[in-house]
Amino acid sequence: MAIIPEPTRRRLVQIAHLLSHQKSTRITSMNIESLTGWSSSLIRKDISMIHYNGGVSNGYDVKDLRRAICEALNIAQTIEQGVNCCIVGLGKLGAALLENSIFTGTPFKLVAGFDTNVNRTEILSAPFPLYAASKMESVIPELGIAYAILTVADDNAQRMANILVSSNIKGIVNYTGEILSVPQGVVVENVSPITAMNNLSAMLAE
Amino acid sequence: MAIIPEPTRRRLVQIAHLLSHQKSTRITSMNIESLTGWSSSLIRKDISMIHYNGGVSNGYDVKDLRRAICEALNIAQTIEQGVNCCIVGLGKLGAALLENSIFTGTPFKLVAGFDTNVNRTEILSAPFPLYAASKMESVIPELGIAYAILTVADDNAQRMANILVSSNIKGIVNYTGEILSVPQGVVVENVSPITAMNNLSAMLAE
Repeated sequence: MAIIPEPTRRRLVQIAHLLSHQKSTRITSMNIESLTGWSSSLIRKDISMIHYNGGVSNGYDVKDLRRAICEALNIAQTIEQGVNCCIVGLGKLGAALLENSIFTGTPFKLVAGFDTNVNRTEILSAPFPLYAASKMESVIPELGIAYAILTVADDNAQRMANILVSSNIKGIVNYTGEILSVPQGVVVENVSPITAMNNLSAMLAE
Repeated sequence: MAIIPEPTRRRLVQIAHLLSHQKSTRITSMNIESLTGWSSSLIRKDISMIHYNGGVSNGYDVKDLRRAICEALNIAQTIEQGVNCCIVGLGKLGAALLENSIFTGTPFKLVAGFDTNVNRTEILSAPFPLYAASKMESVIPELGIAYAILTVADDNAQRMANILVSSNIKGIVNYTGEILSVPQGVVVENVSPITAMNNLSAMLAE
């Protein structure tokens, strides 16, 4: 399989997510256009990048297309087995994510929260255990946690990222404004409002 | 200028942000490697994509490199003039962003918050006015708001995005799990935890 360009990969990830919520059994590229705003020709081009031949004039089979995308992106196994995740930083932003049932129906499962402030881990309630940050290096490998959501203060972000790396984390969703330095093999998705807005500016200027 | 590929653009956006926080006057690609984890050769390649020739053996001039990146990405004017932004949805996540001083020192200025629940707009305190969502179509053009942070419940996300579009918003930072359908010319940066984790999975599988 040829390398899939990043913009295509990002769109395919979204399309797979969207398909998982579809109630109908078939979907056309025009349907996906109306759900995403991306042009149907771009969508067909993205889908052709994974060499999927299941499209006919009355559209794609929803389940089969989703399976094909997940396989092409090598995320099928991840989705089937599920991924244990944790939140690091239980300030207002972290606490807001704690109480959301945002991960229901996804492969991602929050199994632990961490904060340097032990008061917070004692006061906050969550459907999973909360620990002092000093426990990260033991709890993360023990629970097989692969992904972390980082919601600490900026000036603590790299220090916590270092601990995550030494706890064998695979990926970090970075809500802080810091640019994290991590070794090869660990991936970071930067989703702070500032990064997001800078990306909007650059996209709008294209 | 040739089109800059999306991964390069995303890295350059981060490098420009990082340079704006540098205290030193010069920086080498090795310094940037240690700050980001990207290899110095990749960084030099990214910088060469904007045809910047200011690099010498003792590194780049921090201010000049930042200026060159911002100009190449066409975001220099945006940064100089500033961008008015709003938050739509003042639940726990929106309220968490309200109280952060995350935008200090950036071109982005939060000037309004909106919620369909008028109780929230009355009870919450913010350094800028909070309005009922019914005021969006008048307040957004009036205050020249270009970007919105969308933090409403998923089942309300597309409806609010439609109102943002008809209020002439240019960009949406989407913290909801919904895939938004917006017309050409409006850009969306998807930063929900689920999207971010799906992107991590796809990056790790590469």
